[in-house]
Amino acid sequence: MNDFVHMTLEKVHQTAFKACVGNGCSDDQARAIADIVTAAERDECKSHGLFRIPFYIRAIKSGRVAPRAVPTVTDLAPGVVKVDGHDGFAPLALEMGAAPLVARAREHGIAALCLRNVFHISALWPEVERVAEQGLVAFAFTAAMSSVAPAGGTKPIYGTNPMAFAWPRPGRPPLVFDQASSACARGEIQLRLRAGEALPPGWAIGPDGEPTTDPEAALAGAQLPFGGHKGAALALMVELLAGALIGDVFSYESKALDNANTGAPKGGEFMIAIDPARCVGEAERGAQLDRAETLFSMILEQEGTRLPSDRRFAARRRTPTEGITIPQSLHEELTAS
Amino acid sequence: MNDFVHMTLEKVHQTAFKACVGNGCSDDQARAIADIVTAAERDECKSHGLFRIPFYIRAIKSGRVAPRAVPTVTDLAPGVVKVDGHDGFAPLALEMGAAPLVARAREHGIAALCLRNVFHISALWPEVERVAEQGLVAFAFTAAMSSVAPAGGTKPIYGTNPMAFAWPRPGRPPLVFDQASSACARGEIQLRLRAGEALPPGWAIGPDGEPTTDPEAALAGAQLPFGGHKGAALALMVELLAGALIGDVFSYESKALDNANTGAPKGGEFMIAIDPARCVGEAERGAQLDRAETLFSMILEQEGTRLPSDRRFAARRRTPTEGITIPQSLHEELTAS
Repeated sequence: MNDFVHMTLEKVHQTAFKACVGNGCSDDQARAIADIVTAAERDECKSHGLFRIPFYIRAIKSGRVAPRAVPTVTDLAPGVVKVDGHDGFAPLALEMGAAPLVARAREHGIAALCLRNVFHISALWPEVERVAEQGLVAFAFTAAMSSVAPAGGTKPIYGTNPMAFAWPRPGRPPLVFDQASSACARGEIQLRLRAGEALPPGWAIGPDGEPTTDPEAALAGAQLPFGGHKGAALALMVELLAGALIGDVFSYESKALDNANTGAPKGGEFMIAIDPARCVGEAERGAQLDRAETLFSMILEQEGTRLPSDRRFAARRRTPTEGITIPQSLHEELTAS
Repeated sequence: MNDFVHMTLEKVHQTAFKACVGNGCSDDQARAIADIVTAAERDECKSHGLFRIPFYIRAIKSGRVAPRAVPTVTDLAPGVVKVDGHDGFAPLALEMGAAPLVARAREHGIAALCLRNVFHISALWPEVERVAEQGLVAFAFTAAMSSVAPAGGTKPIYGTNPMAFAWPRPGRPPLVFDQASSACARGEIQLRLRAGEALPPGWAIGPDGEPTTDPEAALAGAQLPFGGHKGAALALMVELLAGALIGDVFSYESKALDNANTGAPKGGEFMIAIDPARCVGEAERGAQLDRAETLFSMILEQEGTRLPSDRRFAARRRTPTEGITIPQSLHEELTAS
């Protein structure tokens, strides 16, 4: 039962695409999902890799998602782009929003993207990386599926509410972080439940509101934000940006809507892109990104440090030639349908 | 020696203004400083109150600050405003930047402000609150005086690098948070040193790179970010936004520049303002802020919760009639000159 199947990245893409199309996705929706899933496998970010395909399929089977939806892009203001996913999946909508977001940011110096009516937002790093690869600074925020208690409280309101940030680096992948405002991902608690392991302190409280290291009590209770009230403030910020600001659902609404428990909830996303060249005078543009490189070197001079996403980028150098592996059971599930 | 002097807020303002003008500030620079200091005393945010005036004065005496500087405002792009403080203090420059930032955000939906060449940025909440009071969402980021180690490292590179966020609330003060990306403020370590108390674990490492609860070792070593590597990622983000992005100094440069150790370092600030009305369609504008209020009510329904800044706003209701107190020794220092 611990057998693994080896796959090339091409095969990952084909498998994801075929499973999505076979379950009713349009070619465009399926290709965008396969792109994201393949990028995650390439970077050894397994929790957003092929493992996720069954979530997409469950979401289609719930009848709430429109797997052939064609997203539409409109301007809400000179610097604000809206992408309406029309209840399709997030990857295609995000892909279609990237070019107008970059164009508006270049034109005005800064621009925003409001992503609405989509299901199953994946990791945020692919979209901030895509923008930063074009020389811009990018932020992304999303909220879904309440599981985290507010500061001082005991019942879930916020989602794990990640935010991502990317900074462009000349001649190499951007500096990127993508982190939940919760102390841990929900999946990490589920993994420990399966393994019969206790949780580290600080991750969760039980249904009684008291700190717990029992995974079952944690899942029945509430996750905690990272870093106490400061992480909780970030969770609240993300909730406001990805919910009220763009007119999409809050995490508690998303949770209530996902009554089929697909694990692929509805939820919006807010992005900001900034053109660094428009934030300094012309004469200063040459040194701007070099100064950041100097800072990165200073950090890396200290023993024990690394830059965020370095592990992903190291995997990315390996997997295109070495391929990846997935559990036999997942492979069977994906190729059976 | 623990005697206190009672003052009205009007008297706070007069005292601050007079001390600044008496030490060489222009009326405009002095009035802007007095406004910020009075707002801090009004909100019982004592570390940014009259206690700070001696820092401003030391900075003037160091000869590096231009206390009569007249900030200039220019457009770097349709959505990006630059305020050059010309080596004056931050408050006047921030005040002058607010109106153009708000105007650009209303026009384009989102806008940014790059604040350059200023000394002694105070708390960030006054400037995000000022923008949010006009109905916009606001962010602010600043970095100065390296004291925090990078993730996995042992030597200071980052400043305490705060970020602030404000969300407009109809008919009441905005929701605001303003928090360092370090586990604690530097002043909290200094206070414990003076009191002979140990630090809570997780605040700092000593010069040997090992965790310490000794305030003296902590000040000689490095502060830690809040929440481990996630807080460190935020510190790095703030460093990039308030440093390289806008072409101002990094924290380690600011530290090296402040060789007179005034405690009022040079440092830039980056702000973003977003017009929520431009992030949804016209028909949705009515419900947008109300939905946020529903979220806030849900949070407050849970026992033990409060919203960020609630304590400041509670003080603000009291101090205009009750006044505030400052230590006798500080009062003597401020009125002697």
